[in-house]
Amino acid sequence: MKQRVSIIGASGYSGAELLSLLSRHPYAEVTSVFANSSAGKRVEELYPAFRGTAAGSLVYGEFSPAAVAKDDIVFIALPSGEAMKHVPALIDAGKRVIDLGGDFRLKDSSLYTKYYKHDHTAASYLPKAVYGLPEWNADAIRSAQLIANPGCYVTSALLPLLPLLKEGLVEPNGIVISSMSGVSGAGRSASTELSFTEVNESVKAYKATVHQHTPEIETVLTDFGGRTATVTFVPHLIPVTRGIFSTMYLRPAAPLTADDIRAVLTRQYASAPFVRLIGEASPEIKHVQHTNFIDIGWKPDPRNGTLVLFSVIDNLVKGAAGQAVQNMNLLIGANETEGLR
Amino acid sequence: MKQRVSIIGASGYSGAELLSLLSRHPYAEVTSVFANSSAGKRVEELYPAFRGTAAGSLVYGEFSPAAVAKDDIVFIALPSGEAMKHVPALIDAGKRVIDLGGDFRLKDSSLYTKYYKHDHTAASYLPKAVYGLPEWNADAIRSAQLIANPGCYVTSALLPLLPLLKEGLVEPNGIVISSMSGVSGAGRSASTELSFTEVNESVKAYKATVHQHTPEIETVLTDFGGRTATVTFVPHLIPVTRGIFSTMYLRPAAPLTADDIRAVLTRQYASAPFVRLIGEASPEIKHVQHTNFIDIGWKPDPRNGTLVLFSVIDNLVKGAAGQAVQNMNLLIGANETEGLR
Amino acid sequence: MKQRVSIIGASGYSGAELLSLLSRHPYAEVTSVFANSSAGKRVEELYPAFRGTAAGSLVYGEFSPAAVAKDDIVFIALPSGEAMKHVPALIDAGKRVIDLGGDFRLKDSSLYTKYYKHDHTAASYLPKAVYGLPEWNADAIRSAQLIANPGCYVTSALLPLLPLLKEGLVEPNGIVISSMSGVSGAGRSASTELSFTEVNESVKAYKATVHQHTPEIETVLTDFGGRTATVTFVPHLIPVTRGIFSTMYLRPAAPLTADDIRAVLTRQYASAPFVRLIGEASPEIKHVQHTNFIDIGWKPDPRNGTLVLFSVIDNLVKGAAGQAVQNMNLLIGANETEGLR
Amino acid sequence: MKQRVSIIGASGYSGAELLSLLSRHPYAEVTSVFANSSAGKRVEELYPAFRGTAAGSLVYGEFSPAAVAKDDIVFIALPSGEAMKHVPALIDAGKRVIDLGGDFRLKDSSLYTKYYKHDHTAASYLPKAVYGLPEWNADAIRSAQLIANPGCYVTSALLPLLPLLKEGLVEPNGIVISSMSGVSGAGRSASTELSFTEVNESVKAYKATVHQHTPEIETVLTDFGGRTATVTFVPHLIPVTRGIFSTMYLRPAAPLTADDIRAVLTRQYASAPFVRLIGEASPEIKHVQHTNFIDIGWKPDPRNGTLVLFSVIDNLVKGAAGQAVQNMNLLIGANETEGLR
Repeated sequence: MKQRVSIIGASGYSGAELLSLLSRHPYAEVTSVFANSSAGKRVEELYPAFRGTAAGSLVYGEFSPAAVAKDDIVFIALPSGEAMKHVPALIDAGKRVIDLGGDFRLKDSSLYTKYYKHDHTAASYLPKAVYGLPEWNADAIRSAQLIANPGCYVTSALLPLLPLLKEGLVEPNGIVISSMSGVSGAGRSASTELSFTEVNESVKAYKATVHQHTPEIETVLTDFGGRTATVTFVPHLIPVTRGIFSTMYLRPAAPLTADDIRAVLTRQYASAPFVRLIGEASPEIKHVQHTNFIDIGWKPDPRNGTLVLFSVIDNLVKGAAGQAVQNMNLLIGANETEGLR
Repeated sequence: MKQRVSIIGASGYSGAELLSLLSRHPYAEVTSVFANSSAGKRVEELYPAFRGTAAGSLVYGEFSPAAVAKDDIVFIALPSGEAMKHVPALIDAGKRVIDLGGDFRLKDSSLYTKYYKHDHTAASYLPKAVYGLPEWNADAIRSAQLIANPGCYVTSALLPLLPLLKEGLVEPNGIVISSMSGVSGAGRSASTELSFTEVNESVKAYKATVHQHTPEIETVLTDFGGRTATVTFVPHLIPVTRGIFSTMYLRPAAPLTADDIRAVLTRQYASAPFVRLIGEASPEIKHVQHTNFIDIGWKPDPRNGTLVLFSVIDNLVKGAAGQAVQNMNLLIGANETEGLR
Repeated sequence: MKQRVSIIGASGYSGAELLSLLSRHPYAEVTSVFANSSAGKRVEELYPAFRGTAAGSLVYGEFSPAAVAKDDIVFIALPSGEAMKHVPALIDAGKRVIDLGGDFRLKDSSLYTKYYKHDHTAASYLPKAVYGLPEWNADAIRSAQLIANPGCYVTSALLPLLPLLKEGLVEPNGIVISSMSGVSGAGRSASTELSFTEVNESVKAYKATVHQHTPEIETVLTDFGGRTATVTFVPHLIPVTRGIFSTMYLRPAAPLTADDIRAVLTRQYASAPFVRLIGEASPEIKHVQHTNFIDIGWKPDPRNGTLVLFSVIDNLVKGAAGQAVQNMNLLIGANETEGLR
Repeated sequence: MKQRVSIIGASGYSGAELLSLLSRHPYAEVTSVFANSSAGKRVEELYPAFRGTAAGSLVYGEFSPAAVAKDDIVFIALPSGEAMKHVPALIDAGKRVIDLGGDFRLKDSSLYTKYYKHDHTAASYLPKAVYGLPEWNADAIRSAQLIANPGCYVTSALLPLLPLLKEGLVEPNGIVISSMSGVSGAGRSASTELSFTEVNESVKAYKATVHQHTPEIETVLTDFGGRTATVTFVPHLIPVTRGIFSTMYLRPAAPLTADDIRAVLTRQYASAPFVRLIGEASPEIKHVQHTNFIDIGWKPDPRNGTLVLFSVIDNLVKGAAGQAVQNMNLLIGANETEGLR
């Protein structure tokens, strides 16, 4: 039987990607799409790629709790600070909620305030939130009411790092995560800084060491890896539309060969349908675009006591909408890959 | 009085950039351009941007020592392994030579063989080579006969790293250099891997930890920084035509503030005309394109015991042709910025 | 029941796109992929995006007629001049063949020689070829043994032009087709001209007025439009990976309003599942990327006695592999959209 | 002696390019730069590429007539509708003015109102304006007080078209101008439509047949070409930062060979320093980027009674700031190429 699902914040890039995935999902029926700034417009007016499809004819509405009264699952794809306004009522009404934003990823609301620069107004709901990283938290996800979908950079970093940390093979401090992201990660908005002329033929770092994904990475490394870890995270904006490439630099606790790395990653991910281990090589963004895959490569540098890990994802799919659908699949007892291949 | 200069390997991107700079230089007269594969063609046939200029009408010749008999300075912009075939005769004939390639950068020919994958056939000329990093080696450059122009990545890494290493402020081991380069750095050649379709909308790392610039960086850090240093160097190919962005991750020997970094860099570069210190911020490739500038930024991350340094250059200018002209200026006693502003 | 299908020339971009579509098609089983230059390699070695899929594990073979003895349908995605070497034997062996290249599109072998610059060595098979433009030739396609899949530019031009020509609403001479194509249209090959550095931040026209798609457009306009037509076709290469944008300039035989245009296009395409009429507006390449849609827009300019038509397609899908699958669907009696949504 | 010059609207892309050119011009001294929205900021804050240069230290001021009291020449690089607010006072005060915008290009203010969608409030100054196309109007420019610098698209179209029209070799009606422009032509502004994510990997036409450069092209074709001409002008936005590529389709009055075209263009442009005639070939944007050149190519298509002309310019240089400096050179009696090579 199909789940009735709706999307709050369906006019952004993640929301549109989610709509695209859900509208073709065998077990989902998208009942409504909400986007206050575009209320009254059809989806295909904002996203003409949807022309000629049923999803394209949906009309953005203004969200109200009553509008989702008959829905089973509500997805939220809003900027930080917005989901917390809607989640309490939705949870109290018994809805299952998958939030693609950052509002319910950090259990510690003071960390939230520090990195997101505003207070958390629904902190009492934080304990209900289950971290939606399917490869590490599937059981909890299956029975969750509120799922906090991981950040895009975070997903790209956690999946390679966690197995090594969990097995105690690398130093948990001094971890370096050097990431490059395509511009769609910044969302759909009017900004001189994100204009083609400014971004094309250039690269810049931004929010170096203070990006809000930093505490999320550290928290999850500790929660699932079992160690207090600190990371230096530096994201770079590159002239690419979709995709994240993360290069991680670690110090092995004891010498590790490429085969050792493969063994530990294989132990963890042998049956993970969206993790591809590519060996002592570099992944490439183009190989995962428009897919829910993460490709992971590695390269020990024993001369310098360093281990290099690489990963690539599509920031809008495995980094957002695809992972949200993967979480929904777990939630409804479907095959994890349903609607994602 | 003008120097008579010629360029061997003038049909590649670095060679063409060099021709562009030298043809407008007040103290240089380009007498001949050599490119065996394009012999007989006019420069403007390969590079129509030169149409309507005197340089555009030059005809590529086949190089022979006799052809440069009357020249003062010979620039070489050939792939590795090629310059070493010409340098001995040129040096023996009393020419001053500026080599933009890698053949004379490493004093240790066994390192050369290891990283460049072929033997060095002119090792006896290595002691004559002076490393052409003007900000650190100006005196030696002024009186050199053979100048080894630094590698593009190397330049971007050395200028930020050297002052900190020299003053003993950072650990000389475990240095991480995570670089991104535009595609012109790979030269002008027919290659499926470098085709637009393969490079656009993607990123990949290549030669991670084994790139031939690794020993060059380490050697120069030791020679000028005064410490045995080891680095993990990972270059990434990004969809940009020109430019290198390097992000470096260091461990301070003792806590360093942003002001400390500014102080040490300022001590070194206060009078360096092409080094711009931009503070606790990220530089951007577009700000240095088509210029000989290097922009350097920094960001301490005391939480994690890490210091992040950033730099950007135009790989064809400060990373190749521009720096070569800067070296020529020193060599001929001209103002270091002549022809480069 | 599934058709047994194979692909000759599966290592190029069109071949890979075809493999991707066919491997997920409900009525097709890809039995073999041929690519002489890559024989012995797995598909995922050339195209790592296929990792983790069944298609990715296929091994490229060398083509021989015996190797397809049990297949029902053979797709050919080879450069011009190559398909004609294989088609006679395949046809004689009773295979159904869909050729994505240009060898069987022109009935007049002298035109072929003139524009393709080599002789046609299988001219006696030209009469068997059915032109694979589903929106105009579906009945013949259903019963064809040899289908000539239209050229990419041709598809983008014919679908907007034909209805107007057929109804006699525009002058059949003096038609202008000004097209822009992404670089994947040039195929997967090592070429300095197609390197990122050469293509990025630039535009050029090529083969203006003499491109081999010119006679194909004129022939089909005459065959299906019922008028002798001549066109000036100018393709431009733009820094985009996938997609064609065609702007056509026509002279109306009598004044035409925007509503008139909509009426005539609607008459023709009301039930065509992949044609989207977007009105007096410009289509955009991004709206059709990775789909089999063609979006058509229009804009009369009565001041100047001109009618402007616009179209966009994905050159690898509607312009090649997608249209080939659409043709296969007709051939096997399946729904035209099977495997393409 | 140096001219005292100032720039109103110096914070946009054209203004910044102009500042870059004027600050290196031997006969100009930039006394002030005005940009109300950025008043109080240094140029290098908005354009860090200027760091380390004198121009970078200039502070944007708010414009007032008093602020330019001692200046000789005032450049205006403002959006349409803005220059007309300042020009009357400047002209009355005896300043020489070069306006890069559209306000004084059309002599007929009703045409202005029709295409620019607002009234002209300084129509009485239109007769004073001299059209700043140096290759066709040099004498008038030399003695002008108010120069209307041509539009970017207009420049790319007029220079190829005018000689043919003037000699009566092509039909003056039914001319088609199909142009592609880089994104910097749209100015420096916050806009979702111009964001990297929207522009990259796509193409769209905009303002087809109704762009405000249409009447400018037609007026100048008539004024300098001596014929009443009508054009269909369709601009396309492409994922390039800088550059315009225009393809023009004409109907020859009598058959014209490629040699004929060369002859007529050579007659007109033999001594024009910035016009390069490249023959029966396509120009390429990259060959003119960052230069004041226009490259013109051509290709007759006698089969279809059509003549194709091509041109490329850098929209910010020959299409704006470079041409403005070329006009200033004429105005001050300097060599036309001063500061532009």
